[in-house]
Amino acid sequence: MSYKRLGHQTVVFDNPPSIAAGGCVVGAKEGEGPLRMWFDSISEDSYFGQESWEKAESTMLYQSFITACDKARLAPSDVEYAFAGDLLNQCTGSSFAMRESSVPFFGLYGACSTFAEGLSLGAMLIDGGYADVCAAMSSSHFCSAERQFRQPLEYGGQRPPTAQWTVTGAGTVLLTAAGAGPYITHVTTGAIVDAGVKDANNMGACMAPAAYETLCAHFQDTGRSPDYYDAIITGDLGHVGHEILTDLFAQDGIDLGICSTDCGLLIYDRAAQDVHAGGSGAGCCSSVFSGHILQRMTRGDWPRVLFAPTGALMSPTTSMQGESIPGICHAIALDVKKEVRG
Amino acid sequence: MSYKRLGHQTVVFDNPPSIAAGGCVVGAKEGEGPLRMWFDSISEDSYFGQESWEKAESTMLYQSFITACDKARLAPSDVEYAFAGDLLNQCTGSSFAMRESSVPFFGLYGACSTFAEGLSLGAMLIDGGYADVCAAMSSSHFCSAERQFRQPLEYGGQRPPTAQWTVTGAGTVLLTAAGAGPYITHVTTGAIVDAGVKDANNMGACMAPAAYETLCAHFQDTGRSPDYYDAIITGDLGHVGHEILTDLFAQDGIDLGICSTDCGLLIYDRAAQDVHAGGSGAGCCSSVFSGHILQRMTRGDWPRVLFAPTGALMSPTTSMQGESIPGICHAIALDVKKEVRG
Repeated sequence: MSYKRLGHQTVVFDNPPSIAAGGCVVGAKEGEGPLRMWFDSISEDSYFGQESWEKAESTMLYQSFITACDKARLAPSDVEYAFAGDLLNQCTGSSFAMRESSVPFFGLYGACSTFAEGLSLGAMLIDGGYADVCAAMSSSHFCSAERQFRQPLEYGGQRPPTAQWTVTGAGTVLLTAAGAGPYITHVTTGAIVDAGVKDANNMGACMAPAAYETLCAHFQDTGRSPDYYDAIITGDLGHVGHEILTDLFAQDGIDLGICSTDCGLLIYDRAAQDVHAGGSGAGCCSSVFSGHILQRMTRGDWPRVLFAPTGALMSPTTSMQGESIPGICHAIALDVKKEVRG
Repeated sequence: MSYKRLGHQTVVFDNPPSIAAGGCVVGAKEGEGPLRMWFDSISEDSYFGQESWEKAESTMLYQSFITACDKARLAPSDVEYAFAGDLLNQCTGSSFAMRESSVPFFGLYGACSTFAEGLSLGAMLIDGGYADVCAAMSSSHFCSAERQFRQPLEYGGQRPPTAQWTVTGAGTVLLTAAGAGPYITHVTTGAIVDAGVKDANNMGACMAPAAYETLCAHFQDTGRSPDYYDAIITGDLGHVGHEILTDLFAQDGIDLGICSTDCGLLIYDRAAQDVHAGGSGAGCCSSVFSGHILQRMTRGDWPRVLFAPTGALMSPTTSMQGESIPGICHAIALDVKKEVRG
């Protein structure tokens, strides 16, 4: 087994890649939520100046990319690989965002976990010596997602309490070989976990078992316990999934602790914003991470973070065919200090 | 710039990863074509024993994975990362194929170029020391693709001469840190290229400019010319795209040569099988590579191969919205000898 590997699912970096900058762009509803001060840009126009919501999503994602480049004082042409994905069929949100960029491009699909794939692969390519600058980016748009996955917006379908609200948001992080951090120190890559849940209006329940498995693997591979981290932030389990995850650990006698939260819980005020179980979408964890989480790390609130985006790997077709909904989760360990401690 | 990088788009490996085995499974039509002797399994049943074409596609892809594991004498649990993708919405062909495998999973989307993403990233993760065994895998199924992208099969729509036929096929390659080859020596990662073509019935024309750009980058970055290779095999440009690619190089005074061909041309007998411009689909290049190309390399016909899968990154939605079709191409340099020559 390679010396860079700890256990079956985790790798540790010799030279932890640094996060040079994050860019995050969101819609009006997200801009009214508790994280409003952390976003780089909030658009009052759900079309982002375009003619369709699909083009809006690409525009928003590209804006987050350019914002991250500007903040890192890098030109787009300095980026050696872009890892990008979204929820639209054939991932066109990403490909149309980057089609004029000339950046070598790896398209990803991991549903709402996509951003974690990009962070993981980008970090490995930088630590491995293949690149000095990589972008990890993902997006979702409430309107493009609703009409693709559920109903036309005009239909006004009712949503059960377990449903989550697809975030209109995009986030890009630039990873660099040299930099002042925060650093990615470990990556734990998840396998697909299908616990047999079939309710497409309860994604949290579908994804929580995958989050549990990946976090367990991370703790086992690294020898760390949850209290090593100042914050453990899952992707977008929402209220229901977060409760299930907490319960699963409690059954093992492990208290995930008050530092455990979820991007889908952070992004909205559930009491005031009528989002039911919280936020979701591939742009949820990327927009929350690229603003809020990064800045809470650098200002000293959370020196050590375990970031674990989750995804539900079904489609409307598989659900109509009666299939259960497989979940996945990838965990990224971050530290404001480069030396791996503990 | 990292010493592993040659130019803007190409990396070279210190310890070229070896291809331990390939597994390829196809449908009846592909089994009637000129490559029939190279496939591991040909199914007369387009449902592969399942209840739907989508489940058939997942079954076929998983069969190719198990076949590759068997041939490499590796257990599925020995695989440290699986890189997988397909053409179905939300890439469920891959996620449902691997949902019971327990293999750490990276979902990819690069349309028909997906397999090249997997080979590229798998090779980098092995050479970088993060894994000893990676799987690169992709699939497509004529029936699941037709009803998703075009019409219900029963509609019997006419197809123009530029159209390609979606391959029912899947391929998996296992990459290992140690092995007897063939070896992946270089990877050239493509950027998205949009030449403004809008005809969704002429994918070859959409993808040929991307193939040209990536191959040019490969030759420039490595200092090699086309005649360095015994075979240059693009993904699935088909007849039209292959002609355009040859013309683009001819305009530069470069003869791509008689060794240049395309997986979409190899897999069918165009004169006899009524496939118009040739084969396509994410399973075209993976099934052709995992059987035919690998075996032609190891038996000495083609000691040095440049394999360059191409993809068209549009969706039915973007085409209905009047958008042009972006293309992408990634190139993989392979050699039966480990020492990088020339």
